[in-house]
Amino acid sequence: MNHAFTELEAHFKTISHFKHLGSICGWDQAAVMPSGGNTARSEAMAELSLHIHKLSCADKLGDLFDAVDTSKLETFERASFREMKRSWNLSTVLPADLVQAKSLAGSKCEHAWRTQRKHNDWEGFSKNFAEVVSLSRQEAQIRAEDSGLSAYDAMLDIYEPGVSSAQVETTFNDLMTWLPQLRAEVVEKQRSQSYLVPSERYSTAEQNALGLEVMKLLEFDFEHGRLDISSHPFCGGVPQDVRITTRYDEDDFVQSLMGIVHETGHARYEQGLPQGLAGLPAGEARSMGIHESQSLFFEMQLGRSPEFIELLSPLAIRHFSENNPAIFEPQNLKTIYSRVNPGLIRVDADELSYPAHVVLRFEIERDLINGVITYQDIPELWDSKMQSYLGLSTAGNYRDGCMQDIHWTDGSFGYFPSYTLGAMYAAQFMAAMKRDLDVVELIKAKDLSPIFTWLGSKIWSQASLLGTNDLVLSATGEALNPSYFQEHLKQRYLG
Amino acid sequence: MNHAFTELEAHFKTISHFKHLGSICGWDQAAVMPSGGNTARSEAMAELSLHIHKLSCADKLGDLFDAVDTSKLETFERASFREMKRSWNLSTVLPADLVQAKSLAGSKCEHAWRTQRKHNDWEGFSKNFAEVVSLSRQEAQIRAEDSGLSAYDAMLDIYEPGVSSAQVETTFNDLMTWLPQLRAEVVEKQRSQSYLVPSERYSTAEQNALGLEVMKLLEFDFEHGRLDISSHPFCGGVPQDVRITTRYDEDDFVQSLMGIVHETGHARYEQGLPQGLAGLPAGEARSMGIHESQSLFFEMQLGRSPEFIELLSPLAIRHFSENNPAIFEPQNLKTIYSRVNPGLIRVDADELSYPAHVVLRFEIERDLINGVITYQDIPELWDSKMQSYLGLSTAGNYRDGCMQDIHWTDGSFGYFPSYTLGAMYAAQFMAAMKRDLDVVELIKAKDLSPIFTWLGSKIWSQASLLGTNDLVLSATGEALNPSYFQEHLKQRYLG
Repeated sequence: MNHAFTELEAHFKTISHFKHLGSICGWDQAAVMPSGGNTARSEAMAELSLHIHKLSCADKLGDLFDAVDTSKLETFERASFREMKRSWNLSTVLPADLVQAKSLAGSKCEHAWRTQRKHNDWEGFSKNFAEVVSLSRQEAQIRAEDSGLSAYDAMLDIYEPGVSSAQVETTFNDLMTWLPQLRAEVVEKQRSQSYLVPSERYSTAEQNALGLEVMKLLEFDFEHGRLDISSHPFCGGVPQDVRITTRYDEDDFVQSLMGIVHETGHARYEQGLPQGLAGLPAGEARSMGIHESQSLFFEMQLGRSPEFIELLSPLAIRHFSENNPAIFEPQNLKTIYSRVNPGLIRVDADELSYPAHVVLRFEIERDLINGVITYQDIPELWDSKMQSYLGLSTAGNYRDGCMQDIHWTDGSFGYFPSYTLGAMYAAQFMAAMKRDLDVVELIKAKDLSPIFTWLGSKIWSQASLLGTNDLVLSATGEALNPSYFQEHLKQRYLG
Repeated sequence: MNHAFTELEAHFKTISHFKHLGSICGWDQAAVMPSGGNTARSEAMAELSLHIHKLSCADKLGDLFDAVDTSKLETFERASFREMKRSWNLSTVLPADLVQAKSLAGSKCEHAWRTQRKHNDWEGFSKNFAEVVSLSRQEAQIRAEDSGLSAYDAMLDIYEPGVSSAQVETTFNDLMTWLPQLRAEVVEKQRSQSYLVPSERYSTAEQNALGLEVMKLLEFDFEHGRLDISSHPFCGGVPQDVRITTRYDEDDFVQSLMGIVHETGHARYEQGLPQGLAGLPAGEARSMGIHESQSLFFEMQLGRSPEFIELLSPLAIRHFSENNPAIFEPQNLKTIYSRVNPGLIRVDADELSYPAHVVLRFEIERDLINGVITYQDIPELWDSKMQSYLGLSTAGNYRDGCMQDIHWTDGSFGYFPSYTLGAMYAAQFMAAMKRDLDVVELIKAKDLSPIFTWLGSKIWSQASLLGTNDLVLSATGEALNPSYFQEHLKQRYLG
């Protein structure tokens, strides 16, 4: 009975094994590979990418999908069937040579970017980037023709299934009506704040040791994961072996410490996915927005809360025993971790400035993929939008402007909106959790397990069994409601 | 013209891309993977192994080999054709399910061994090992039927093409006629030697820094490789990105330092393989014996020479600045690095005891694969041969007896003889090199490049273009002649 369904499951597990190898080799490429290995690695990764693509659109799959009697499936099997079919639809639409060409161009562009960014070398970067953009547009065009969406919406749908650029525009336009005003008020309020600014040397070894201890506090499972260093922090690997990375600045511990909290949120989502669905599309994380909601829950809702900072303080004082302990006193850390100061770098941005970085990228990538602008227009557009949204210039400063992020280097257009959708989901999850648990008291008592159990049961273990909207509804009792984000910001920064 | 040949090349390059991923993920599994990741990794590696096997015996290959007009090939293309065909022959003979089962059983056995060895747990180990032996015997039987060789010879042929166990027996029997006597004389001569024994703490960080500097001296290319830590040192990765590993004992720097020199020899062979043949069987290292000849050339011929130790001494004194410098004075280091002291551990064995370790393993694995003994017989046989060859007991000590090596854990039977063949090749290469270069003067002048250039042109760049015997003949002017090994040992230890 339903032999076709069993065969589909086996096929998707095979695909996941090859993705496993790609994920580990991708981590290796970013975290430990010597630079001379890149050409051979890129060729091997392109070959793998082609093979995964072939498996993902194997001829037999269409027949197997037709042969499944869905009326005989259990509820969770029906969800698994739906996700296998979605995955198949996303893959079959692209020709194999385009997949391979994009993987090769992306790998080349990303690798060179690691050096070019340091040298502010837009000229060099744009030579590789032109090819990535051209291939991404071809991809978007093909996906658009297939789905009936616009070119950019077809890309957005990869990362945020069911979310359109019109919805994103509406939400982002709404944000921009109240957020600049709120940010201005907060900046004004904080003008007279006095606090100790970290100004000593914080060794990589000490930062790393503290980071590991904070990961333990956050119940990261070190039997199934690691922390390493890469030039752009990420969470990779596989659910059974999650690899998070960070970068250390010896002049400052602030970003890296909270960066580890952030990536630990991603990691625990992966580590909490249901083992029973391992290797199947329904067992994967729901969407990039939901993924980001977990990292931002860890960083913004939990990590920067006054109560969590009370826990961090003694750990930091112990690890940075050669440094001035006054820096790490709770009140000082709280001030540091709630300072609002618009800057050029997205990953370093405070919670009130971050959405502007995302809106800017969303508008540029949307127009780039829809063919309204070319890649040569990006630096000028970037500068003008930074001026308008945050009052800052990036003229001639590509390194801290349009070359700062890894996403576009390999053609991941459509990803950026997830960050701000994630921030809104995170605020909504915390509000719902507070109806079930006395979160503040739990943190004060250093009893974090119930918080993770809540997330585990409501989000992590649900994987992709529900659609995005249904997942949010089932976890919080209502659809996405940005007012929780607004409330959270008001409460934290003006409360 | 010869379209079939071009298609064969493309096919073998595809295979090499998948092997690349396996090699990096294999390094990861041994050097950095958290233990909880092993089940998923083993499944992914088994899937890859199956896929590589399928590619290696794809139906179309037989027709392609038939379709090539070899009379129209250049000499190097003819070698490439020969090696592709050899590789195909080795693969096609095994059924896919056996390949997958052996990969899975080997991966499981090897991973558990990493813990079981520490706990001297032969019972636990033998449960996994039984399956590895059973599958390896099936493999040997199938290869034997195909090639007309005996079961063990069919395994030996994988690692040392063209070498039979009868030849190995002859050579090893010859060794055993003069080596025990020589070793006894040397032990007697060294009885009255007085020297400083390392007895302080040598930190991992300092040992690592010294190791890296010695690798630089040996012209290891860090743009195309790395040094890391694993429980059993190995050389992995791919020619463009060679991964060597070591293990550090903080109570002793002696083994680890020379271990790095050894692995650097393997690594430089890989790094020196011809780029133009990258991804093709003819572009790979010739055999395991030739591979070992390079690591042993680096370690025994070059590394432990009195002149090289003169170069090592000041580096060691500088790096171990907290330690007693008298330990690292040239004369003391020379004495340390030429001490003969039969012990239980193969990888720690001195040059005069090492062959006995190999002869013991050769005799056991030959009889195990030929079905003369079972895996349960191993501990007792091991103990009795150790008593007889080196006068040492391993009764009840599996950890330092039959569980000490990684090779058998994944079923690499037939590999061990390569070590002693390699030692003999290395001595012969050095004798030939000394006819072309004033090697002693070059080392004294810290001018090592001509030595590596000689190896590069005679060995590394030749890859598998010649058969093993032809390679040795072309590099030294004669076939394998063990008398160079005997001369070398007499000269170093009694000279």
